Formats: sequence, C-alpha cells, structure tokens
Amino acid sequence: MVEMQEHKPGSATVAPDMVWDAWGVPAGHQPLSPQIRGLLAQVFGISGEPVARRAAAEVPLRPSTLTATDRAGLAALVGDEHLSTDDLVRLRHAGGKSTPDLLRRRADGPQDAPDAVAFPADHAQVLALLRYCAEHAVAVVPFGGGTSVVGGVDPVRGQFGTVLAIDLRRLDTLTEVDPIAGTATLGGGLTGPRAEQLLAGHGLSLGHFPQSFEFASIGGFAATRSSGQASAGYGRFDDMVQRLTVATPQGPMHLGRAPASAAGPDLRELFVGSEGTLGIITAVTVRVHPVPETTAYQAWSFPDFATGATALRSVVQAGAAPTVLRLSDEAETGLNLARSGDVGGAPVAGCLAITTYEGTAAHVAARAAEAAALLTAAGGTALGETAAQQWEHGRFAAPYLRDALLDVGVLCETLETATTWSNLANLKTKVTGALMDALSAQGTPGLVMCHISHTYPTGASLYFTVVAKQLDDPLGQWALAKRAAGDAIIAAGGTITHHHAVGADHRPWMSAEVGELGVRVLRAVKRELDPAGVLNPGKLVP
Amino acid sequence: MVEMQEHKPGSATVAPDMVWDAWGVPAGHQPLSPQIRGLLAQVFGISGEPVARRAAAEVPLRPSTLTATDRAGLAALVGDEHLSTDDLVRLRHAGGKSTPDLLRRRADGPQDAPDAVAFPADHAQVLALLRYCAEHAVAVVPFGGGTSVVGGVDPVRGQFGTVLAIDLRRLDTLTEVDPIAGTATLGGGLTGPRAEQLLAGHGLSLGHFPQSFEFASIGGFAATRSSGQASAGYGRFDDMVQRLTVATPQGPMHLGRAPASAAGPDLRELFVGSEGTLGIITAVTVRVHPVPETTAYQAWSFPDFATGATALRSVVQAGAAPTVLRLSDEAETGLNLARSGDVGGAPVAGCLAITTYEGTAAHVAARAAEAAALLTAAGGTALGETAAQQWEHGRFAAPYLRDALLDVGVLCETLETATTWSNLANLKTKVTGALMDALSAQGTPGLVMCHISHTYPTGASLYFTVVAKQLDDPLGQWALAKRAAGDAIIAAGGTITHHHAVGADHRPWMSAEVGELGVRVLRAVKRELDPAGVLNPGKLVP
Repeated sequence: MVEMQEHKPGSATVAPDMVWDAWGVPAGHQPLSPQIRGLLAQVFGISGEPVARRAAAEVPLRPSTLTATDRAGLAALVGDEHLSTDDLVRLRHAGGKSTPDLLRRRADGPQDAPDAVAFPADHAQVLALLRYCAEHAVAVVPFGGGTSVVGGVDPVRGQFGTVLAIDLRRLDTLTEVDPIAGTATLGGGLTGPRAEQLLAGHGLSLGHFPQSFEFASIGGFAATRSSGQASAGYGRFDDMVQRLTVATPQGPMHLGRAPASAAGPDLRELFVGSEGTLGIITAVTVRVHPVPETTAYQAWSFPDFATGATALRSVVQAGAAPTVLRLSDEAETGLNLARSGDVGGAPVAGCLAITTYEGTAAHVAARAAEAAALLTAAGGTALGETAAQQWEHGRFAAPYLRDALLDVGVLCETLETATTWSNLANLKTKVTGALMDALSAQGTPGLVMCHISHTYPTGASLYFTVVAKQLDDPLGQWALAKRAAGDAIIAAGGTITHHHAVGADHRPWMSAEVGELGVRVLRAVKRELDPAGVLNPGKLVP
Repeated sequence: MVEMQEHKPGSATVAPDMVWDAWGVPAGHQPLSPQIRGLLAQVFGISGEPVARRAAAEVPLRPSTLTATDRAGLAALVGDEHLSTDDLVRLRHAGGKSTPDLLRRRADGPQDAPDAVAFPADHAQVLALLRYCAEHAVAVVPFGGGTSVVGGVDPVRGQFGTVLAIDLRRLDTLTEVDPIAGTATLGGGLTGPRAEQLLAGHGLSLGHFPQSFEFASIGGFAATRSSGQASAGYGRFDDMVQRLTVATPQGPMHLGRAPASAAGPDLRELFVGSEGTLGIITAVTVRVHPVPETTAYQAWSFPDFATGATALRSVVQAGAAPTVLRLSDEAETGLNLARSGDVGGAPVAGCLAITTYEGTAAHVAARAAEAAALLTAAGGTALGETAAQQWEHGRFAAPYLRDALLDVGVLCETLETATTWSNLANLKTKVTGALMDALSAQGTPGLVMCHISHTYPTGASLYFTVVAKQLDDPLGQWALAKRAAGDAIIAAGGTITHHHAVGADHRPWMSAEVGELGVRVLRAVKRELDPAGVLNPGKLVP
C-alpha cells in the first residue's frame, strides 16, 4: 500500500526580490486554466480578461523623509552602498503579501513605502542600526522575505517621522553545524531554499516547509511562529528553535543554553513570535535531521470531514504521526484545491487526506504501517501515492493562483486558527458561517473551503480559503468578512492565528487572546527593550 | 526479548505532610542495610549509629511576626480555621528538602519559618490573599508539596517584616476532563498520586513521574518546569501544559487558547518556571493519555558510558524513543544505585540502561522492536526485564536513603544539568572533576555518580549524585562543592538546572544563564505583575 521513493532535494537558489505587487517571481505566474475560468463563469458569472497592472515606475510613491543627517548616520554604519532610498527598492519593501496588501498595491493612487532600506552585513551592524534608530527617533521595520500576510512589515511610522526597513538578506550564512547534536546555526536572513541547500551540503535538512518557504527567511520563521507542512513530523518552527541571537536597542541577547532547562521562564518564547517588536532575530540555532533516506506517500479518502478528523486524531494521539498529515474538507476536496494542477477539474467526493513519511527505510515502514492501520480502522480508504505526490508537487503554488484570480476580479484570501479536537467542528462551522454570512450580506456569496494541516495530540489547525466575486471596494468587502471571521474565532474559543502571526491585522483581537494583563506584560517587556518604541510600530502589541 | 506486562496503576492517596526534618513520611524511612553499612565503613571509614534527631516540639522556632491586624485581615479572606500560626504547622512550611535544608533543620539552634500559613479554598481566595499581601507589605511564599531542593520555598521576608506561606493543598480538584482532546484541568494543589487517581477514574493518565511525585503538586510541577522519569515518552511537564490559570497581585491570567498559536510570544512560558515570583498557578490544563494498555520493560548493558550515550542518542534522533529511557554511568551502575534494593550489593560492570514502553499493544511492540534494533546496533546487550522492573519499583526511594545516610554522618546530595549530545562527555567530566576536587581539597574525597534520565533530539540531562564523609560543618563543606559544580556547569556550557529549578540556590548563576538583559526582562515582568515585590522574595530573579 505504501511505496517508497527516493528523496528529491529541491533545487535551491538564493531567492530574488518578489514582484512588487504580487506573490513570488514572474516565472511562477500562469494564466488561469480553461477549467478554472469555466468554474468562475459558472459560479460567479466572471468571464473577464485579466486587468493590466501598473508598472512599478508609474507608481506615485510617497517621497522619502529621510534627512541628510540620518542618511549619513545610517550609511556610516552599513556602508553607503547598503543604504538605499531608491524608489524601486523602497517599493519592494512597501509591505507584505496579504490580499489587502495586493489590492492596495493594484489600486490607483499613491503608494506608501519605507523612507529608506538598510542592508546590514551582520549582527553587529543590526545592533548599531537599532541603537541609532532608538537615539534618533527613526521607526524600524525588520524585513526578511516580505511574505507577511498580516501586515507584519507595513511601513508604519507610529509617532515618528521616518521609517527604516532593515532588510536582513545579507545575514545569509550557515555559521555552525553540529552533526552529533543535530543542530545548525543559520543567519536570520537565509531563505528556506538557501538554508536547505547549505544544510544539504552536510547531509542535513531542517524540514520546515510553510507555503512561504521559497521566499521567507529563517529569522521571519522564528519571529512569526511559522509552522510548516511537515509539522506533524518535524514540529513547528518554534519547536525547532534551540538558540536565538537577538539584537535589541538595549544590546544583544543570546538565549537557549541547553536542549531543555528549568532555569526560570523560557525567554526564547518571548522572542519567538515577537514579530520585530522586541528586537531583530539575527541568528537561529535549529534542530536538524539527516536528509531522509526515503519518503513514502499515501493519500486517503474519508467519507466526510468529521470521520477524517477523528482518524487524524487517532494517529496523532497514538504517537504514530506521519511527517505530513493533512485533511481537506468536502468543499476543498471537491474543487481539487489540494492538488493545484487539477483545480476546477472533475469534482471529487468525500474528503482527501495526505500522508507522507520520511526517515530511514525501517522507520518509514514501521510508522506507515502503524498509521495505516489506524487510519483504516477509523474509516479511511487508501488511494495510493499519486494524489499525495501531486499535493507535494504543487504545494507552493496557491499564492500564484490567488494573483491570477485577483487579476480577473475574484476576491481570494485565506485565514487560519486552531483549537482542541473536541471544539474543531464547532469552530469550523462558526467561522464558515461568519464568512458566508458576511459575504452574502454584501450580495456576493462566496465559497469557503477548509483543511487541517497541523495536528497536535490535543487539537489541530483549521485553514480557510475564501473565494468570492470582487465588489467595487474589495478592501472594504474583505474587511467585513475578516472582522466577522476573527470575531467568530474568538467567540468559538479558537486562537486568532495558528501560524500567520498577528502583525497589524490581528492586533484588534490580541486583548481577547491573552487578556488585558497579558497585554500589559507584553508592553512591560517592550518598554524594557525598546524604550523609545521604534521597533515595528503598530504591530502585535495593542 | 521484550515482554509485556499488565499496567499497574499506583495506589494513590492524598499525601500527608512530610516529616519536618526529612523527606517523605515515617513509613518510608528504613535503617541502612548491612550491605550499605559495610560499604560506608570500607570507603569512608564510617561505622557510627544514626544520630538521634530533635523532636519538632523541641525546636526553638522564631516567633511569628504576624500582627493582629494582618491576622484578622487574612483570616477574613480564607476563614479563621484556614489561617494558622501554630508552631508545628509553621515548622512544616519552613522550607524544602535539599540536603542543606535538612542539615540546617537537624542542626542545633533556632529555626526560621513563615509567620503564618494560609490554606485558601480556591483561585478567588488566592487572588484575594495576594491583593491583601501586596497592599499590606506581607511577603508570600507559595507552597505546594514543599519538595523544592533549591530553596524555592524558603521563608524569606525580603524587605518585609512578615512572610505568609500560601499552602495550596485545598485546590485539589479535577475540574474538567476532555477525553476527545485528551486534556484535563487539575487544581494547582493536587499531588501527583491524587491527580493520577482522579484521572484513572476517567481511564486517563498524566504520566508525570519525577522523584518528587508522591508529594509534589501540579502547580509546583508547572512553576518549576519539572521533568518526570517518563519524559522521553510523555514530555517534560512544560510540554504537557495546555492552559494555565494564574493569580497575580494585579489580577487573574488565563493563558493558552489553543494547542498551538502564532499570536505573539507564548506567555505561558513566562509563568511556567516562574517559581512563584510572578503569580501563583492555581489550575493547569494538561495533556493526558489513556491509561496504557500495556507496559514493556527492557534493561540494557553497555560497555561504557560513551557507548551508551551514543546508543540513546540514536534512538531519540530516529524518533523511536521509549517511554522511559535512562543510562547510569559506570560508578552508578557499579553501586547498583539505579536499583535501590541492591545498593551496595555485588558490583556490576559496564553501564546499565533502562527502557520501558507504554501504550497499545501494537504501539509498544512496534516501538520496542525499532528501539531494540537501534540499541543493539549501537553496542547494547539486552538484559531482560528484571532490572528495569527493579528500577521502577524503587524509583521514588532515593530521597529516603539520603536521610539514612545523613543520619550516620554521610553527606549526600544531587545536582543536575543538561547540554547537547556533542558536549555531554565534556560537561560530565568537568562537573565530576569540580566536585571531586572541591571535596578532596577539604580532605573528604567523595564518590560522584551520574546518569542520563531525560533525552531530547539535540541533547540530554546529566544527574549527579555525590556522597562523601561529612565534616563538622557539612553545610560549608557542601557549599564549596556546589559552588564549584555550578561554576563548572556554566563554564562548560551547561544549563544551571535541567529540572530542579532556580530557587535561592541557583540564583547566583542566573545572569550567566540568561544574560544581564535577560535578567532585566524578568525584572520588568515582575515589576508589572508584582510591583510591591511581595511574591517569593529572594528566589529566581537576581
């Protein structure tokens, strides 16, 4: 039933800048397939051609407010050639890649951007930049891959007149490998593919594959509590973090002396998830593992989502989780959204689940057999490996599809949460209902699809994809749906974000998430480390 | 090779107070065996009879400073019968159970103790007590099982004239069970056996078995980042924590909305390990699992510690860890210290390792086969199940043996640390050397034994047991050895404590552990939550 395949390491290159008004690189963008266009015509009555977008050079950019004094002061720290006020450079650092971000960039009118972008060479230069900015009242936005979908890298000035983006791409080295401990120290600016490429040179792998993998950075993974598609096997990124080096305006921090400790609160857990508001993570020592000997693929079908969720739960609670474990609901399965090449093709019944197993041949065989027995006992039907391989092949493609949909007037966005297994169905129902109602009330009923992509012994994530016809004001249209979904998540006991982070977009729900006293604790920590308040204004901390 | 046995749940009763000047309950105390006495005579020239100890009523206790006003104010919150200034009650709350604690209590002269002990009924009463104490300048020591071995419950007054111990034993309920999610909400004052007993009523188990299990409390496990003997299978206590309810002088906190979240820093990780300095943990929602269908036992022998450590590493890094996984070094194996009934018996060569496997029969069989193959390949010889069962049978007995040793003039204490697999041998050598040198320099060469009892993909713990002949000033004698060991741990890159916590005893090393800026962060959080500074003075935060 489970077949073995050789492990195929990805082709890794240093990622270039992403397109300023869309996801990824130009080569990733494809026109919509006839199948999808047919579906859009049928469901939404949309049959238009893609709208042409502005060239970057045509965008009226807010002029840089960087003073000559600050320009000289900052350039002295990183070198003149590593401090840019060039409009195209600024535009490429104008924010992240949420649907509202892209809609704003595609709209007419002026575009905001950081007033300058610094490209420090190392931890010491990041420290020096933060000290300068704190002393000279310059706001700072740390910038890794720029993949935030929650407004986490918006060029917000707060109370300051100038905002500097600190782009960490030059912190791109693998500085230490410990093959005995299975750890590696990675520069905060390394992209996912480049990190894997460097590790592969030592026969090692990190195994962190979020949808942003191709562009996002190691420091960003830590700063946002990223979770990758292989989290069932290798854990969330926060599980992988062993040691952190953080630059703050008050000096450096080096955290994590041992694999585990009882020496008080775990301060790493304050900086993991701090989203650039407490400091900039310049290096992360992560847990790694040998490049897997083998990978096995197995897709499953369940008659319905509830049966599938119970099956996933049985595997995870038995301590027999695969490396990848995900389940699409009926809507997502029906549209083949789990397999990007087949979206809009012939509808599929039931709920598709994907499993993969990585490791030594013996480990893969033992784990796959144990999981297969449990999934079968819970009502699953093995489908073979093809659908699982198709999922893996297309797993980074969805953001490109979103761009093509936005271009033809379709609103497409995602949001995510997590809760206990016992509350999962309730949360799914409430969030789906809130999204449907909010869109229908505006006269644009939508499709809401959902999958489980991260599992834990006590619960799982829910990842929603929403598609509807755009109104004339798609930003306002989505804002109403997003607000309704966030309120529903909190009311139904979910977390406001499982792996997208807080940024600017989820900040309104932070008090509900951690309580007023929790917010006070965050503010107290921020006051201590960033008394000037220059670090990433408007993000995370209400 | 691996045999199955039925699971035997422990006989759980509500634990009584521990003996005021020793570990545990009277029934646990046994005279030294002839074997051990022979060994002591041979190695240390010690052949004396046990010294008689003072009766509690004979101890000159420092008079209570509680004012009539405060007595009335506090009694109004919990009821007069739940606020005690009785000398015996105060004496039983006079501190923890480190060897220095016991030596101090057995010495002549006056004994310090909290000025009063409150027994609140619930979270609301704890909140009210903390508000009162903050407003009226009364220091507070949270008291769970009183098992601290790092001075964590010493009745320190700090800048205040009065100290109140808050004994949490009445917070002893199982308030919520979620069998689908596999979670349970336990009162902070529940002891280990009582928690297991209540969970067993629902077919569930927590699986947290530190050496303090019989007396320590759920809140204490969380507040000290406890780690149990089954940590390889069920994780450390901090891994088990899903939600926390904390009472602080500034109000209540409810943390942990989901099994995993990206909503900023994980504030649970500030309170887990906070040792009563930021608040009092009144309830913990923990991950639980079904009472195991079966338990398999298998002991192993390795030719030396390095070979055994490498074998343990191979199992953990393959994701094939047993439920219990431990390795004694040559010295500990030779003295049979892993099997309390045989201590001092015929010496055993090599290094003994213990494995147990819990779960369904299928899971146990699969995991045991995978681990056995790896351990055998790494040079292990399977010894059968007897030694592993003997270890389990005696696993809570060592603190009683320490009392018997102290009574005949033997100094006996433990300390622990953790580091990466690659640094493990170096750390072991350095700490062993520091202890041996510090004792020999005082003319009392000691025995230093060590075991690995907690393993992680990237490293492991080291647990040292030290035995020597007592000098006239055993407190000063041990202080020199402890200081040397702590300095050696930090110099060799270990953590100052893997699972005993910081308390008063490890506070001198906290700046080295988390850095000066880390200490500033801890102080900032404490200022926010405990501006009066009444919570557990002199502990954790330098």
